Amino acid sequence: MNYEKLLATRTSSMKASAIRELLKLAANPNLISLGGGLPSPDSFPMELLPILTEKVISKYGGTALQYDMTEGFMPLRKALIEYVGQKGINAELENVYITSGSQGFLDAIAKVLVSPGEYIAVEGPTYLAALQSFNSYEAKYLQIETDDEGVVPESLEEIISSYPVKFVYLIPTFQNPSGKTIQRKRREQIAEIIKKYEVLLVEDDPYSALRFKGEELPTIKSLAPEYVVYASTFSKIFAPGLRVGFFIAPEKIGRWMVIAKQGIDLHTSTYTQALAAEYLIGGYVPEQVNKIIKIYAPKLDTMLNALEKYFPSECKWSKPDGGMFLWVEGPKGMDMEEVYQKAIKKGVGFVPGKFFFPNPGDGLETMRLNFTNVTHEQLNSSIKLLSEVLKEESENVMI
Amino acid sequence: MNYEKLLATRTSSMKASAIRELLKLAANPNLISLGGGLPSPDSFPMELLPILTEKVISKYGGTALQYDMTEGFMPLRKALIEYVGQKGINAELENVYITSGSQGFLDAIAKVLVSPGEYIAVEGPTYLAALQSFNSYEAKYLQIETDDEGVVPESLEEIISSYPVKFVYLIPTFQNPSGKTIQRKRREQIAEIIKKYEVLLVEDDPYSALRFKGEELPTIKSLAPEYVVYASTFSKIFAPGLRVGFFIAPEKIGRWMVIAKQGIDLHTSTYTQALAAEYLIGGYVPEQVNKIIKIYAPKLDTMLNALEKYFPSECKWSKPDGGMFLWVEGPKGMDMEEVYQKAIKKGVGFVPGKFFFPNPGDGLETMRLNFTNVTHEQLNSSIKLLSEVLKEESENVMI
Repeated sequence: MNYEKLLATRTSSMKASAIRELLKLAANPNLISLGGGLPSPDSFPMELLPILTEKVISKYGGTALQYDMTEGFMPLRKALIEYVGQKGINAELENVYITSGSQGFLDAIAKVLVSPGEYIAVEGPTYLAALQSFNSYEAKYLQIETDDEGVVPESLEEIISSYPVKFVYLIPTFQNPSGKTIQRKRREQIAEIIKKYEVLLVEDDPYSALRFKGEELPTIKSLAPEYVVYASTFSKIFAPGLRVGFFIAPEKIGRWMVIAKQGIDLHTSTYTQALAAEYLIGGYVPEQVNKIIKIYAPKLDTMLNALEKYFPSECKWSKPDGGMFLWVEGPKGMDMEEVYQKAIKKGVGFVPGKFFFPNPGDGLETMRLNFTNVTHEQLNSSIKLLSEVLKEESENVMI
Repeated sequence: MNYEKLLATRTSSMKASAIRELLKLAANPNLISLGGGLPSPDSFPMELLPILTEKVISKYGGTALQYDMTEGFMPLRKALIEYVGQKGINAELENVYITSGSQGFLDAIAKVLVSPGEYIAVEGPTYLAALQSFNSYEAKYLQIETDDEGVVPESLEEIISSYPVKFVYLIPTFQNPSGKTIQRKRREQIAEIIKKYEVLLVEDDPYSALRFKGEELPTIKSLAPEYVVYASTFSKIFAPGLRVGFFIAPEKIGRWMVIAKQGIDLHTSTYTQALAAEYLIGGYVPEQVNKIIKIYAPKLDTMLNALEKYFPSECKWSKPDGGMFLWVEGPKGMDMEEVYQKAIKKGVGFVPGKFFFPNPGDGLETMRLNFTNVTHEQLNSSIKLLSEVLKEESENVMI
């Protein structure tokens, strides 16, 4: 049977799988991968699972295995009101919704808001899987300039004053892929701009709990509550395999999202939501976050030290205060896909940065490095190997 | 802020929420609800949860909480090959995919295959939540005629020979909402028709394991493997709160679905998949299905006896051999929404059948009754109450 003839027009915009093909080259199990975005499995609270299971059974009984409201498991939504309150976000129950991971949120928000050909303003670079969700609804992108302090407010203002933007999508803290954080003053400026132009902002915040140093910054949601949908997840503070995310939104937007989600997956697993609820209610988050930071922070230091020691002087890189990633920019003219091809032959994987830019041709000289799922020894040796390839490539660029 | 201006055009096709508004009237906790589609919570294997949790931790460790492949958790996919083999379906690993419940499957298949305005052929009546998924991709419908033996093959052939149908969507066994089953000869005819016209069939099969009596029928997938995507779920054989479904498809279709699912939810919960895998591998299904049938089958008998005893003679109803629903047809001219409004005042809820038809104006005189989540006493008293409203209404129709 000829299955191709059956495809929807939108499916072709989902098919851009160059990165998937490229990353397949890194499937060698001996490879040291700085490419993924995986948390360290050492960090998962396996010892809590039997305890949480017991609590879920005794507190919720069969309810924890039953169909549930699309909005989310009530005890979890209630516990989240307090949790986001600590981040300066005032939420009532009708503002709190559960999604199937952050990805479930990204899919639903684009489904509800974006018609084919409409604009989303995003950072350049931005989160790849967000582009993947948005692409499937045939979005177009406007790329906001960023520098070391994150989004450049003037660039944001120029874009939203010139184009009919459906929403602005930002990851303000320890951004994936760049590791950069939008600083306080700029957050305030961004809040003012979106209020002035009455534009909706989607604030994706999976990483802010993983702060290794420096002071906590206000969420943009707390600065412009009516104009921001705030999204986060249990993937980094508990475990990604649960697929429990959440968002805080004006009630109207929440209601539309619920209607969309009914068709998408009816509701997120009641059982993993119940586990997440007991995890939050039991007060396990601070201890777990502490444990994760104790694993990640020294790894970031190791990577930064290795970069300093080995990397060619033409390269510069971000120095994040937390999160899971950092970002390297080589000299203009360097092709990081070339570097990637050579690096995997030497046994090191990473993600070439160009895939994180919506504008084709941007970021050719960039790469994303992950430091959370490899050992200190592997960090050292892989950065050393990578530097050798870079130096070779650098000489080619000079010539 | 004016949020309405932000809505995508597709969102308006998701907004048809007459049924949601209607069912809100049934929110009274004292109401006996024959309206839902909930399994009985008595049937959930709560006692297995600690055992399965232990197995998952010892066998899979941190992997069970980590990000995983979009295709699904490998041990579960492998176990499903054997499981569907028992239903006469030959599958290799590359044909087996996990979804976030059946709903996750319905969303993804429409997303991959249906462009706005394209046709899906469905039974009249059909599964409401499937229409909800398909609506969000702006599908149009062609309604296949059904009688007591399920889909009328001649009607199917007429439709697919006259219209460019993207796929045919059927629930051949103990259909939701009608409880009807397509009989063997018709299954064979349907298989021949889709082969002849090279049309894709989506066979949704959540209920066939819940057979109370009669012989098992072949899946249409087993009769025309290349032309059928077969979908099922753990919701009825384990528990719906896990949100674990699966489908068996030609590899090409599976690959497109995976690309779509990456953007939709990345993957289904690794943890609930691991629980489902250990449930399947541990051989718990037959015992659990037996337990469920022992609860449901007598309830169906009670409902059928009560219908016989109390319902007006102008009404006829399906007599399913399994599943969770049966279907009542009143005399032409009867308005079951009227009946609903009066019935909830008397303390009985059900779903008026018209909502299950894609063609507006069809099925006004029909209703769906669920028998799985109420006691025998409630079944008796609710059918009695309902019959009183029906008789009243019936007299109005006569006049």
